Amino acid sequence: MFENPLHLLMNPKSIAVVGANNIPTKMGTIQALSILKDGYQGKVFPIHPKEKNVLGLKTYTSPEDLPEVPDLAVLIVPIKSVIPLIESFGKIGTKRAIIITGGFRETGEAGQKMENELNETANLYGLRFVGPNCLGIFNSQISLNTTVFTISREPGFMGFASQSGTYVTQAVPALKKRGFRFSKALSLGNEANINMVDALEYLGEDEQTKAIILYIEGIRDGKRFVEVARKITPRKPVIAQYVGGSASGARAGKSHTGAMAGPDFLYNGIFKQAGIIRVDSVEDLYANGWTMATQPPLKGNRVGIMTNSGGPSTTISYVCDSLGLTVPRFSDDLQKEIRKHIEPHASAANPVDLTFDVSIKKLAITLPEIIAKSGEVDAIVIHGVMMTGYMREIYPHMKEMAGNISLEEFLKFAKPVVNEVFELPRKYNMPFLISSFFDEEDCYTKGYMDNNVPVFRFPEKAAIALGCLYRYKQIRERMPHQEVVLPEINKSAMEIIRHAQKNNHKALNEYEAKKLLACYGVPITKEELAATIEETVAAAAKIGYPVALKACSWKIMHKSGKGLIALNVENETQLKKEFENIQKNAGKAVLVLVQEMLKGSREFLAGMTRFAGFGPCVIFGLGGVFTEVFKDTSLRLAPVADTDVQEMFAEIKANKLLDEFRGMPKVKTDKLSQIIQAVGNIALLHPEIAEIDLNPIIINGTEPVVADALIVLESK
Amino acid sequence: MFENPLHLLMNPKSIAVVGANNIPTKMGTIQALSILKDGYQGKVFPIHPKEKNVLGLKTYTSPEDLPEVPDLAVLIVPIKSVIPLIESFGKIGTKRAIIITGGFRETGEAGQKMENELNETANLYGLRFVGPNCLGIFNSQISLNTTVFTISREPGFMGFASQSGTYVTQAVPALKKRGFRFSKALSLGNEANINMVDALEYLGEDEQTKAIILYIEGIRDGKRFVEVARKITPRKPVIAQYVGGSASGARAGKSHTGAMAGPDFLYNGIFKQAGIIRVDSVEDLYANGWTMATQPPLKGNRVGIMTNSGGPSTTISYVCDSLGLTVPRFSDDLQKEIRKHIEPHASAANPVDLTFDVSIKKLAITLPEIIAKSGEVDAIVIHGVMMTGYMREIYPHMKEMAGNISLEEFLKFAKPVVNEVFELPRKYNMPFLISSFFDEEDCYTKGYMDNNVPVFRFPEKAAIALGCLYRYKQIRERMPHQEVVLPEINKSAMEIIRHAQKNNHKALNEYEAKKLLACYGVPITKEELAATIEETVAAAAKIGYPVALKACSWKIMHKSGKGLIALNVENETQLKKEFENIQKNAGKAVLVLVQEMLKGSREFLAGMTRFAGFGPCVIFGLGGVFTEVFKDTSLRLAPVADTDVQEMFAEIKANKLLDEFRGMPKVKTDKLSQIIQAVGNIALLHPEIAEIDLNPIIINGTEPVVADALIVLESK
Repeated sequence: MFENPLHLLMNPKSIAVVGANNIPTKMGTIQALSILKDGYQGKVFPIHPKEKNVLGLKTYTSPEDLPEVPDLAVLIVPIKSVIPLIESFGKIGTKRAIIITGGFRETGEAGQKMENELNETANLYGLRFVGPNCLGIFNSQISLNTTVFTISREPGFMGFASQSGTYVTQAVPALKKRGFRFSKALSLGNEANINMVDALEYLGEDEQTKAIILYIEGIRDGKRFVEVARKITPRKPVIAQYVGGSASGARAGKSHTGAMAGPDFLYNGIFKQAGIIRVDSVEDLYANGWTMATQPPLKGNRVGIMTNSGGPSTTISYVCDSLGLTVPRFSDDLQKEIRKHIEPHASAANPVDLTFDVSIKKLAITLPEIIAKSGEVDAIVIHGVMMTGYMREIYPHMKEMAGNISLEEFLKFAKPVVNEVFELPRKYNMPFLISSFFDEEDCYTKGYMDNNVPVFRFPEKAAIALGCLYRYKQIRERMPHQEVVLPEINKSAMEIIRHAQKNNHKALNEYEAKKLLACYGVPITKEELAATIEETVAAAAKIGYPVALKACSWKIMHKSGKGLIALNVENETQLKKEFENIQKNAGKAVLVLVQEMLKGSREFLAGMTRFAGFGPCVIFGLGGVFTEVFKDTSLRLAPVADTDVQEMFAEIKANKLLDEFRGMPKVKTDKLSQIIQAVGNIALLHPEIAEIDLNPIIINGTEPVVADALIVLESK
Repeated sequence: MFENPLHLLMNPKSIAVVGANNIPTKMGTIQALSILKDGYQGKVFPIHPKEKNVLGLKTYTSPEDLPEVPDLAVLIVPIKSVIPLIESFGKIGTKRAIIITGGFRETGEAGQKMENELNETANLYGLRFVGPNCLGIFNSQISLNTTVFTISREPGFMGFASQSGTYVTQAVPALKKRGFRFSKALSLGNEANINMVDALEYLGEDEQTKAIILYIEGIRDGKRFVEVARKITPRKPVIAQYVGGSASGARAGKSHTGAMAGPDFLYNGIFKQAGIIRVDSVEDLYANGWTMATQPPLKGNRVGIMTNSGGPSTTISYVCDSLGLTVPRFSDDLQKEIRKHIEPHASAANPVDLTFDVSIKKLAITLPEIIAKSGEVDAIVIHGVMMTGYMREIYPHMKEMAGNISLEEFLKFAKPVVNEVFELPRKYNMPFLISSFFDEEDCYTKGYMDNNVPVFRFPEKAAIALGCLYRYKQIRERMPHQEVVLPEINKSAMEIIRHAQKNNHKALNEYEAKKLLACYGVPITKEELAATIEETVAAAAKIGYPVALKACSWKIMHKSGKGLIALNVENETQLKKEFENIQKNAGKAVLVLVQEMLKGSREFLAGMTRFAGFGPCVIFGLGGVFTEVFKDTSLRLAPVADTDVQEMFAEIKANKLLDEFRGMPKVKTDKLSQIIQAVGNIALLHPEIAEIDLNPIIINGTEPVVADALIVLESK
């Protein structure tokens, strides 16, 4: 099997660092110090053209000069030196590099050219690299840190692949305060060589990594991204933030790492297809990632809340509801049991609210234990476990009463219950989260964090993390993905396309488009093409009134609003009149399509667009008049598996229309599914097709029928 | 004018505290200490049945015993003592109290009874109080703190009314770290006497308060809430979090403060009507409140971003876009000017990204100044201003190089640019926000916070705060509210209702309902009531085919799906058949309504429901088949002003349907507006009506016409 290039890059036995000297403010020096001081046990070889000794280590003038071939080269050098150095390292046999230096594709065309050249040079020697324009990597397992910040050496469980260096470096102090720790972290930069998908695959294989988080400004190889992620997500959660889906976001990302972004609906679609959970902020990325990495899977949606303050528990309850979780009212028996431990006016129903009682033993041990044992909840959240944080707050008031002792002396009065409190969360195999307004200055916040129990600074965040666990429950439980077997290519379909191409048509006309669809089993309206009034009349008679009459030409891709369509034509007289009208509005002789008039007030759409790097994407959703109003669609990469279609059905808001609805019968969704899958298959079988748009697909009784179709061809 | 009771309560010259003793762990003692130690300059009189001296102060046995009449009594006493004490204070002439004690309506029926009695006792003496079941108040202006936490004495600008005590106490340490400060804060508890609306009104009048934040579990007097808020919001922003709008949230709130919650769509509606900005988390409540309280108004939607790290600036750009803001590409001239100060490969376009350049002077002074002056932005966000925070991070790496000096010594190398950096934000009259991963351990985070420049710990939060400023810009600029003048009550309408009531009908039948609507100028379908086939045929002939035929009885409130409606009846034969069908399906002789068949594929709805404390609420939105699918509606309290209707139109997603749409002409929205307003007026004029449901309102060409109507009467 092809080995992921990051295994070696993240675990080098020896590292050559180019760009460090003895000036402490230089980036190169700072990064070399991270390698030297954070506990890495391998060999480190500084390379510098002039210095004999850098940071106390013997220093070499060039790669050729080194006593042995290093596994990894780290380059923090002026841009003009990058390619020559990669060439030198390539020649001596170094197979991996991290290129920190920026100034490549993110700066425009010249930079892109240089980046291509860099990649070609590396390829010559089979050298694989992370970057350029990145901040390096971190591997807690071997205490290797090539970034500019100090990272906690304690082993972490959350693996991070990031298109922002800041989020693996500058954000680290904020993570430390919250007790979040990386197993591995990678700043990927421009991804000229090793990319986001490689990093995802690597983290998927890494045993230390229990959950994966991704910060994304744009993915280059969307197809492989989905394939790789889909294999990981049934056994390991993947959470992603995507910020390239708007005009300013896309522009900012482009000047940051040269990322090519795509619209939000594309990324929403591929994340769903791959089983990736999307979050809206980097804070949620870290916090939910840490929760997923440390907590056992959620088995149901029932949350038990314990607190001594009503606001946070009400807030948590509200947010839980909005995320598909419930805060069930406890059974009478359970309430009776709880009542033994709380004040008469306190609530035992769930949330359990101790009100003014500040017993930590009750709040953090007795009650959660009773509730966890009851079988009535699948997760527990506690708000209000605090001691030294609170004491710090009231110290200024208490100081005099306490004989003017110092804060330190005052804090010694604190006698926190320690072991039992911090052991409890692991005792019952369910997620256990803490909400607190205190940071590590409180002994309980600190203790929980040290024991890998997530502590959230605002109550909503605890509920959001539970929502994320719940979302992952659904992903774990979804049907396994099945590879789609494409049908044989249809010769008649190919003929239709060839004919259009030969005549330099940029699109198929509606008649041709539907014929092509029919080749792949897609149900279409009964229809005939007619050139004259006589043919039109004959066709209508054959199809049966009422009919629809439409101008039919590849040149008229969008017919509506131009007087080129007549619906509900009831009889011959009207038909003749409409035929004349269409000819007049078209401005010249035009073929007309005589079509059966379907009855059905439920209209859907299916379509296909290609996105660079992603291949054909299939869209399904609400069609007809409301298409643009509600933009109620779902997207998946082709081919679309059975399981994908089921999820697309569930995803659209208008899914009620698929069921029995206001006296209308249930839609034959298997037939609708075939249409959606056919769209994807056709796109894969016929790369000459640029775009497909089937709208409306009318539900005729229970049967979906394509009533209008547009197929645009790739421009040659 | 009626004076708000909180003016005196928040500014007492003397306070009697009942419930404090000399035991430091007692709530009463802790709260008394807050009053004594946080800087309050008025007189404090402890009352205790036994102690002669509490916390060093002469102590009195009862209110009657006091040397003077205190302005305010604070009660932290067992529940049985509350009413007698209020009686005593009432008798001596104390006019204000804060009742901390819990155990009243939040515990159920007996508690509710006691709470009523408490209120009656207080009313006897004109004594107004906050609570019971609260944590007290805070007034930074006179350093008065009756809560359990130490609150910063520095003057704040954000006024807080909260139905959670925790959010004005336990959350305070988290606020201090973020530099957020209250002007005034109130924990309202059960609101037996002084309620959320009083607090809102008070904060609206308070000059020190520049922005108001509200934490809400349920509002009792929704009508007054809207009236009061509507007067405040054009000149002072009001931000609210509401957590009662779900099943668990409502239940938790009820056991917390006995709050009666309502659905989310009700609160969304009244917040919009009142110009209140709703947020989803208490963190956003504080952070956006502080931003609004400290920042000048936003004049446009253009945001300039400066950074030395691409991830946060891309993220901020993306979130700005999603909130209606833009991050415009700077003009060539401006970029040229910026280019002088940045590296050649750094981006000058906006976001301006210094990349590896760490010059604080450029990032925090030179560039923001150039950009602020340019006139090309309306707000500025900077990410990456840091110094001592960063130094702390790299200290472990640098220690040896620096000669093993201590962290304190090492930090002395920091020479932050101070005055210019912190003065700049005030120089250009525009919002100026900071994003940083560092807390106050960084000298710049601390400096900005000390200068009332909001610092956000995660980049998205800065964008969200800008979004909030932008939302408030729209609220400031909206048309002033105009009082609605109700029409005269219509006698025929009254007659219709009386007739139904006299016959013990629980609703009007469709014919009556529409007649009533017509009395108030609402356009309805042409229709006639018929009892026999002959009458039906005659009516249809008069109206003209095609017609609709519907069973018409007050007992059949929901007709669809029961075979009681026939649409598009084309001719007499079909009419007769359908008449028979309806009679058969109804199971007995039933009147039928013969109705013109309107053509029009755009369908809306208007309706009215009454919510306790809120009065009649008017709903407008997408009607017809899609009503339940998209729930695309907007709500306002009646009466509905012209400006309200315009906002309702803008609010629904389907508002595109009101304009020219796919070949259909623009809807006469003035006529639609009249229908919506009439619904509200009818509800106000006829309190006998419980519910109105007009669905669909079909757009017939350009004219809205009510095609179906249900009016339910109040049960007597």
